[in-house]
Amino acid sequence: MKIQKPVYYGDYLHLPKILNAQDTESAKYGPEAHDETLFIIIHQTYELWFKQIIHEICSVREIMKHSFIPSTDLSTINARLERVGKIQQILIDQIKIMETMTSLDFMEFRDYLVPASGFQSLQFRLIEATLGIKAAHRMEIEKQFFNSRLKPEDRAQLEKAEEEDSIFELLDSWLSRMPFSEFGDFDFWGEYSEAVETMLNQDEQIIASNPSLNDTVRTMELRNLETTRNTFKTLLDANLYSKNLQEGKVRLSQKATLSCVFIYLYRDYPALQMPFKILNSLVEIDENFTTWRYRHAIMVQRILGTKIGTGGSAGHEYLKATTERNRAFIDLFNMATFLIPKHSIPKLPELIKDQLDIVYDSLRS
Amino acid sequence: MKIQKPVYYGDYLHLPKILNAQDTESAKYGPEAHDETLFIIIHQTYELWFKQIIHEICSVREIMKHSFIPSTDLSTINARLERVGKIQQILIDQIKIMETMTSLDFMEFRDYLVPASGFQSLQFRLIEATLGIKAAHRMEIEKQFFNSRLKPEDRAQLEKAEEEDSIFELLDSWLSRMPFSEFGDFDFWGEYSEAVETMLNQDEQIIASNPSLNDTVRTMELRNLETTRNTFKTLLDANLYSKNLQEGKVRLSQKATLSCVFIYLYRDYPALQMPFKILNSLVEIDENFTTWRYRHAIMVQRILGTKIGTGGSAGHEYLKATTERNRAFIDLFNMATFLIPKHSIPKLPELIKDQLDIVYDSLRS
Amino acid sequence: MKIQKPVYYGDYLHLPKILNAQDTESAKYGPEAHDETLFIIIHQTYELWFKQIIHEICSVREIMKHSFIPSTDLSTINARLERVGKIQQILIDQIKIMETMTSLDFMEFRDYLVPASGFQSLQFRLIEATLGIKAAHRMEIEKQFFNSRLKPEDRAQLEKAEEEDSIFELLDSWLSRMPFSEFGDFDFWGEYSEAVETMLNQDEQIIASNPSLNDTVRTMELRNLETTRNTFKTLLDANLYSKNLQEGKVRLSQKATLSCVFIYLYRDYPALQMPFKILNSLVEIDENFTTWRYRHAIMVQRILGTKIGTGGSAGHEYLKATTERNRAFIDLFNMATFLIPKHSIPKLPELIKDQLDIVYDSLRS
Amino acid sequence: MKIQKPVYYGDYLHLPKILNAQDTESAKYGPEAHDETLFIIIHQTYELWFKQIIHEICSVREIMKHSFIPSTDLSTINARLERVGKIQQILIDQIKIMETMTSLDFMEFRDYLVPASGFQSLQFRLIEATLGIKAAHRMEIEKQFFNSRLKPEDRAQLEKAEEEDSIFELLDSWLSRMPFSEFGDFDFWGEYSEAVETMLNQDEQIIASNPSLNDTVRTMELRNLETTRNTFKTLLDANLYSKNLQEGKVRLSQKATLSCVFIYLYRDYPALQMPFKILNSLVEIDENFTTWRYRHAIMVQRILGTKIGTGGSAGHEYLKATTERNRAFIDLFNMATFLIPKHSIPKLPELIKDQLDIVYDSLRS
Repeated sequence: MKIQKPVYYGDYLHLPKILNAQDTESAKYGPEAHDETLFIIIHQTYELWFKQIIHEICSVREIMKHSFIPSTDLSTINARLERVGKIQQILIDQIKIMETMTSLDFMEFRDYLVPASGFQSLQFRLIEATLGIKAAHRMEIEKQFFNSRLKPEDRAQLEKAEEEDSIFELLDSWLSRMPFSEFGDFDFWGEYSEAVETMLNQDEQIIASNPSLNDTVRTMELRNLETTRNTFKTLLDANLYSKNLQEGKVRLSQKATLSCVFIYLYRDYPALQMPFKILNSLVEIDENFTTWRYRHAIMVQRILGTKIGTGGSAGHEYLKATTERNRAFIDLFNMATFLIPKHSIPKLPELIKDQLDIVYDSLRS
Repeated sequence: MKIQKPVYYGDYLHLPKILNAQDTESAKYGPEAHDETLFIIIHQTYELWFKQIIHEICSVREIMKHSFIPSTDLSTINARLERVGKIQQILIDQIKIMETMTSLDFMEFRDYLVPASGFQSLQFRLIEATLGIKAAHRMEIEKQFFNSRLKPEDRAQLEKAEEEDSIFELLDSWLSRMPFSEFGDFDFWGEYSEAVETMLNQDEQIIASNPSLNDTVRTMELRNLETTRNTFKTLLDANLYSKNLQEGKVRLSQKATLSCVFIYLYRDYPALQMPFKILNSLVEIDENFTTWRYRHAIMVQRILGTKIGTGGSAGHEYLKATTERNRAFIDLFNMATFLIPKHSIPKLPELIKDQLDIVYDSLRS
Repeated sequence: MKIQKPVYYGDYLHLPKILNAQDTESAKYGPEAHDETLFIIIHQTYELWFKQIIHEICSVREIMKHSFIPSTDLSTINARLERVGKIQQILIDQIKIMETMTSLDFMEFRDYLVPASGFQSLQFRLIEATLGIKAAHRMEIEKQFFNSRLKPEDRAQLEKAEEEDSIFELLDSWLSRMPFSEFGDFDFWGEYSEAVETMLNQDEQIIASNPSLNDTVRTMELRNLETTRNTFKTLLDANLYSKNLQEGKVRLSQKATLSCVFIYLYRDYPALQMPFKILNSLVEIDENFTTWRYRHAIMVQRILGTKIGTGGSAGHEYLKATTERNRAFIDLFNMATFLIPKHSIPKLPELIKDQLDIVYDSLRS
Repeated sequence: MKIQKPVYYGDYLHLPKILNAQDTESAKYGPEAHDETLFIIIHQTYELWFKQIIHEICSVREIMKHSFIPSTDLSTINARLERVGKIQQILIDQIKIMETMTSLDFMEFRDYLVPASGFQSLQFRLIEATLGIKAAHRMEIEKQFFNSRLKPEDRAQLEKAEEEDSIFELLDSWLSRMPFSEFGDFDFWGEYSEAVETMLNQDEQIIASNPSLNDTVRTMELRNLETTRNTFKTLLDANLYSKNLQEGKVRLSQKATLSCVFIYLYRDYPALQMPFKILNSLVEIDENFTTWRYRHAIMVQRILGTKIGTGGSAGHEYLKATTERNRAFIDLFNMATFLIPKHSIPKLPELIKDQLDIVYDSLRS
């Protein structure tokens, strides 16, 4: 560990490269448009942050590829996912800087950028692929849209990335390996079913006897309740579940989903604290990208009005449509559906509790 | 101006009242649910901020009711609207506090709240009505939904509020009174039309000659261009515009819209700086409420999953549907549609420029 | 669990009380100052959030009072502390709303508020006392300042609160009970000392041989290194440590500090993940209050200039002085001082690792 | 205006350069430290934003160099300054990302960076110089500290930048040129003095007659009042003011300060709306840098503890010391000192009001 050469701030950060990478197109055709520099720099910071996000999620994916993930690695995974969440927060907040550029300012250089488009961000597609959104999940039109825009070498890199296991797939496999779908003598899922049954019957009674509901609302609520009943039934029935899976209504396997439910219910045990945090961090990441897409679409509409974008896209209409789709972890997001009130959660046998817990009085070596 | 009585912090703020207004329902039926206090307090802060927003926008409405609004009042209007924007930012950010309550925590007291619902917030409806979203703009089903939920006295108060002129209506009237649709000898709108024509022809040529577009995309872009052409035509044609108005495609009158376009194009003149800021602040308020509704819907889905809300609503599905609708100032939001590149904006005659400008060397008294 | 009475939103939240608690003083002496409503409402939201913070930290204190804290309670503690951090973020961000009130606006009602002052916020004092900042830690002048301002009944309530164990005290006791200062055969702290020694010697060599340092800087750096050496020596020497404690240089006991160091170094083990998170959350809370005080002082200076506050305080000068003091968990904040590079952290014997870890293949019941 | 070459997103943004500029030092000596990439990327985004800030404030400086600044340029100035404020908000918020790197993570590569330091950021020094903080305002020790760290070519560039007029100097000159220190027949500053006198006498009476003040507090308040009295006296007395200027207690000239007071008092007139906004934006920029320095110092302490930084600086102690100093616009910040209650502001003669106002019924061409 010998330090040979003193390090200089600007050289270490490659500032000569970084700070000389802002060439405005407008300057090539006339007087430079003042705001084009902002437009370039904000996109460059976005791409730098995308690189950082890729650095984090690829390292998480490497850890998750192991068929056994040691518990000491779980907090590393979670710390990195939480960091991605903080970065996304900045991605969202930066939109406020972009919004200081008015339509009129943008129109000074918009025409020079044709047909470039944010849809050509390879890194953003790599993030999606690494998390679990791949070509297979996109609409046909959306796929063509992307493919036609990417350079062949970029397209090739994306296709290669999509061949690797995504975090979604590795998560499914990790959750499925957990020992929570079967507990030997203890019929956990039977007890859970009973608790669900009791809860739903109670709900039904509340709806039936609530004097402030008129008939239309009462009927609607009872229909909703029936839907909820079916959702629970599907969770616990391998055949029904598998049908849902095939129809694309859910993406997570049944075993993985059951482990999730167990983790959500008993999240306070040391063995489950970190898995619970990881699930939450993934939901957070999903939610943040959704918010980012949404805010981005709004911003584009404000700057472009109903005009088309430089890439020839229908602009904000298209962006809004993709906001809701393209969520790798929507199943985790909907997990609340399967929770039951705390007082009705099955009590775990002591032996199982012991295995989920850690108690130390003194450490023996 | 005699000060009689020393003021004490806690009394001035009525803290004994405010801090003793948190009665949990759960405590009435068993052990208190820890998170119900959070649920109550966060809603109380929301309602306090709603009151503040009402205080601001009602004061703005009072100023705008005058048939002549002195220019010194414009910065007061704008300062208050900008404040509303800052408050909304907190309303949005507060959702992060709510999200620290997990589904499991919420289920400990959810059942006790039936059939209360955030849709019963009278103040939120009053804000909408004051800005310009009234019963007339809602879908039939939405109207029934609200009305059935409000207490008769609350419903009456809302109906009364809807009878008053909204900020939207007063804005339309203020903009329509501006002298920007006719300039005597100077044919401003003729010159503007020509500039638009030139811009669109240029766009058409770019699309036609761009080698990187395939036929499908080229056709699509040309079709988009045609739409844009029609949008401009409608702006300048009283009959077409009036048809659009009747069909509910726009809400702002033609004269008001023309004033808007003029303000956006010449926003840098002292006479137009503050009007431009006011239009922007209204767009900001609209955008913030949209973001708030969106984030709120996401949060509800995360906490409820696909279950129904305490008020028996379809929950997040409903919330998402109202996100996009219910925007009083969508016409301002789309104003970018009518802008043209800076270099092609008509030059104003000196005499008109003088009337929009202020130059002082010395002040004479 | 029978629901008897339908709940109405406004009644549940006591809105009639909450929304009728804004009585401006200015209205008593002439025309109401528009911005006084903002002044009242923002302070009311602050007090509501203070109540919520008290609700959280008092519940944490109750859990920590037990001589044994089950590991399943640790995530409850942490979740509530993290929530406090999110609330503080809003307290800080809300200052931006206050800053929309200009000096001129404030001067319209400032005189009517004499001698009220934010220093009279009983709840803020209760938060400080619960966390661990009590009268004993304040400067004499500061103590008098507060006491003279509080009503006798408020003062009595504060004094009573200060008699209870604070979270700081309970934390010290919890950390001291941990089995990390002695490990039987394994001489952990001896190995740690050696690692520290190696690191410091290396640092010394780097400084000595760095060609880019001039003599002044080199001497300064070597002096700094000597200080660091003494800091480590003190950590491991009961007598030196106890002297530091008496002189008020540290507040946390030696045993508790050693546990902290151990937790920071081995934070990735399931047994230490949650304790590590709790320590971090407390640092976060401390840091947030510091930031809040700082931003508050700046805001007061901007609105008051160098004038005195309504409570007759020297205003922002005073506020800035208290920013840095009044930090209950400054010892945790400085914990980085005692860390050593990952590669030099002592390897734990397998037996100890097993006791800090959880591995489950299948759960046996 | 012929578009020759289709633009590709990645090429336009120079992504191959930008995204290949992250070379970790740790990788040169062993296994790469995971978090060093974050460390590099966050600093690169900081430097990109610094470049953008320089782009904005240098363009503002160019406009302000003209001996006459047309009113239509004022909103351009303000829009760019407001944008700087939004960028700074992100600079501050990004610290939260940095804080996800723990001390232990940082220690894995800290030693390799010696003696690099954030103090070597040339761009940050250029920003300070452009705003108005130059070598002349720094403490001797601080100057040496910087100079010894910068490369000769960087030092030369900074010195050259310091020779140009700063925004502070141009602001002083712009404000001094305004016609607000003399109004012909109308003795504005005489009336202002009387209003001040009345206000202070009233304050004195309030203090004297307030029954809730004890003698110590009363004496202190009266002493404060005397100070305030002297501050006003100095404002209006050329000799006293000039003494203050020489002693470095203020930086802004008397004429400029008087213009400021006038602008603050009559900010609602169209002629003064934008100047008022510009002053506010400069205060905002100053305040944001102060907050950034403060948050940065806190973050460094949390990561380094009481250890020294890689650049051999005393770390956070030094950083905190510079937080309060190095504010170019502190005089604007303290402007509240000179304001008086709205009701006592001198009424302007009609002729002067007309010159500050704009009224248009119809525009004549």
